[in-house]
Amino acid sequence: MARRESTPTTPGSRAVVVDLIRSSGPISRVELTTATGLTQPAISQIVRKLVSDGIVRETGLKASTGGKPRVLLEINPRALYAIGIQLGFESITLVATDVTGGVTGREQIDGAGLDEPEDVTQRMIRAYHRFVRGLGLDTQTIAGVAVVAPGPINLRQGFVLGPPMLPSWVEFGLLGVLQAKIDVPVIVDNDAAAAAVGEFWSRRVSRSTTFASIYMGSGIGAGIVIDGALYRGAGSNSGEIGHISIERDGEPCFCGNDGCLERYASPSAVLETAKRSHPEFAELGLTFEATSIMRDFDLLCRAAVVDFKPARALVETSAAQVASAAVTLSNLLDLDHIVLTGPAMAFAGSIYARAMRDRLSKSAFSRRAHQISVELSTNPRDSAAIGASALILQGSVAPGHGPLLRPNP
Amino acid sequence: MARRESTPTTPGSRAVVVDLIRSSGPISRVELTTATGLTQPAISQIVRKLVSDGIVRETGLKASTGGKPRVLLEINPRALYAIGIQLGFESITLVATDVTGGVTGREQIDGAGLDEPEDVTQRMIRAYHRFVRGLGLDTQTIAGVAVVAPGPINLRQGFVLGPPMLPSWVEFGLLGVLQAKIDVPVIVDNDAAAAAVGEFWSRRVSRSTTFASIYMGSGIGAGIVIDGALYRGAGSNSGEIGHISIERDGEPCFCGNDGCLERYASPSAVLETAKRSHPEFAELGLTFEATSIMRDFDLLCRAAVVDFKPARALVETSAAQVASAAVTLSNLLDLDHIVLTGPAMAFAGSIYARAMRDRLSKSAFSRRAHQISVELSTNPRDSAAIGASALILQGSVAPGHGPLLRPNP
Repeated sequence: MARRESTPTTPGSRAVVVDLIRSSGPISRVELTTATGLTQPAISQIVRKLVSDGIVRETGLKASTGGKPRVLLEINPRALYAIGIQLGFESITLVATDVTGGVTGREQIDGAGLDEPEDVTQRMIRAYHRFVRGLGLDTQTIAGVAVVAPGPINLRQGFVLGPPMLPSWVEFGLLGVLQAKIDVPVIVDNDAAAAAVGEFWSRRVSRSTTFASIYMGSGIGAGIVIDGALYRGAGSNSGEIGHISIERDGEPCFCGNDGCLERYASPSAVLETAKRSHPEFAELGLTFEATSIMRDFDLLCRAAVVDFKPARALVETSAAQVASAAVTLSNLLDLDHIVLTGPAMAFAGSIYARAMRDRLSKSAFSRRAHQISVELSTNPRDSAAIGASALILQGSVAPGHGPLLRPNP
Repeated sequence: MARRESTPTTPGSRAVVVDLIRSSGPISRVELTTATGLTQPAISQIVRKLVSDGIVRETGLKASTGGKPRVLLEINPRALYAIGIQLGFESITLVATDVTGGVTGREQIDGAGLDEPEDVTQRMIRAYHRFVRGLGLDTQTIAGVAVVAPGPINLRQGFVLGPPMLPSWVEFGLLGVLQAKIDVPVIVDNDAAAAAVGEFWSRRVSRSTTFASIYMGSGIGAGIVIDGALYRGAGSNSGEIGHISIERDGEPCFCGNDGCLERYASPSAVLETAKRSHPEFAELGLTFEATSIMRDFDLLCRAAVVDFKPARALVETSAAQVASAAVTLSNLLDLDHIVLTGPAMAFAGSIYARAMRDRLSKSAFSRRAHQISVELSTNPRDSAAIGASALILQGSVAPGHGPLLRPNP
């Protein structure tokens, strides 16, 4: 069964309207009619509901040519909040965002590490309650909580199906344990998919843009947004760019494929190469321990950016490989817009973005037809947590495609 | 601008209804209401128009549990015809199909070769008129003509933008020249995209299937069908699987990328390898001339199938490479169903299909979540021409997304 986040019927129309107000607002009802192709009665009905739900509010008037001035509509950012939680090996990040995707709170606690999933989850639950209290948020205004982790994920049952860093989580019913102690709707999803929705949502990207984000943490994933909706594919395992083969007869990967991008370009792969030429990197303070990959990678990237040549060479090689994979992604999907994000982009993101722009401008099949813009996330470290919030909010404003709408009363 | 072949408004609903009748018919109005989620009045209105257009007809009754028997609906295959023309270097194929995608006529003429585009186009136009007359088709029942060629294509202007085999076509306004002499709507499109629509349409695949076809002619392309509609991407250059890199620092390709699948696995690449070990292949009658690549490849594949070991090894290597690219396609799109098609599949398709099934069952990221079925086209040689017809028919039954509807009066 293919899954997409919008349908050709009414909830989809509501999502289209919210997206337009979000991306083009303040905007009048007449402009919404023109932009959507929906009838005037349909727009009136959808807007009336959005205003009564508190999601959209009227704001001032706009002089119109010849006619009476038109009432403008805009998103009411404080109508709803969502909590996003990024579950990682080295850290767990909580964020609260408002309807526009603006971050209104952030907290970081210890990562999952090698602790028991049950203990980590109880720690997350305690952190959630403390976090919400600290921000003074009324539970009635919280649309939901999304916990995101490296894939694969079983969406329906809310299991984390075993990224190599979190093997003990495979059999653990994360969603059930969370939902028992959190009194708003909870979902579990993939970090890269969430990040794509977050970047799309907060950038006010147009729905007609063919959009993807490439997320690099300990692994490499991608999220694809088509017609304003996250593209899931047959079973929510789309966007696995880290597991496309970039080398014929390449090294075997845990996933079952050979020559996967992750085996060459991920932080742990880059650090393995650095470790093999250890003497040069000793002065950076790298530990080469499995428990501090992201910390070591940050150190390496900071050195690369200040032009420590051996570090620069390693990061540039990784960037060239990710760029080549971006050409593959674009040649299959004919993309308009790519955003680079994830904690691994925190220090050397500009090196990755430059390599990707260069490579796409020379090698993308569509380069003579249209430009493919490449941007860096403004908040690469937290983008999965922010995206998790966006998943909740996008679901809330398009009922039937996520947690129930719980408007600010 | 992202382009997809359906919209969330009314023409899309009509397409959904036609697709359901096509794939699940004979079917009642009540069953259509349940399956689509559309209201009963909406279904009644759409069906009434389809019946008056002659696309759908009523057929018998079905006893229903408790209520009065229900009228069943089915596609009227003879209501409309479409003509598909596959423009190739070595041959040009014309087919006529009815509304169900059934082939009612076929003709082949000399390919474009190195002739002037103007001359080739006039030859196509003469062939079209002779073909339609020969079949005794009333022009009033012809929904349109689609000419498909290897990409890239400029859809709006109807130019063929330069596959390496047809360089002189780049500046030629194919669509304008055709439309001036053909009195039904004409479109120009990509062969692999058309083949995907044709395979989807004629197989009665469910709209919820995440579907792709991989088309191998002189080049290798793919067409992606999501939610029952051809996925175009930002500028109709999606599905370029022949131009994804399968080799780090691989051989440069005409497209600007390095290590492209086509450079290793396409018929011309396989023949180049065969040529380098010429003595073994002399007995097969290969000419190794640029003008007879498909003929030579057919000979090689026939030898591979009867287990001439050197030929078998070459074809199996190509099949393994295409299979690896299919894993990439699936890992990015999370596919349910892949169909292998195109003239290069005519003789050795089973070798390619087996390699692909094996590789996907071992390496696809989603393999534990669901099966990915791999099928071979029932008519790989003509699938782009048949698909061209399907593009017209799909457009005709969902007005606004293709040539105008011209029903049988």
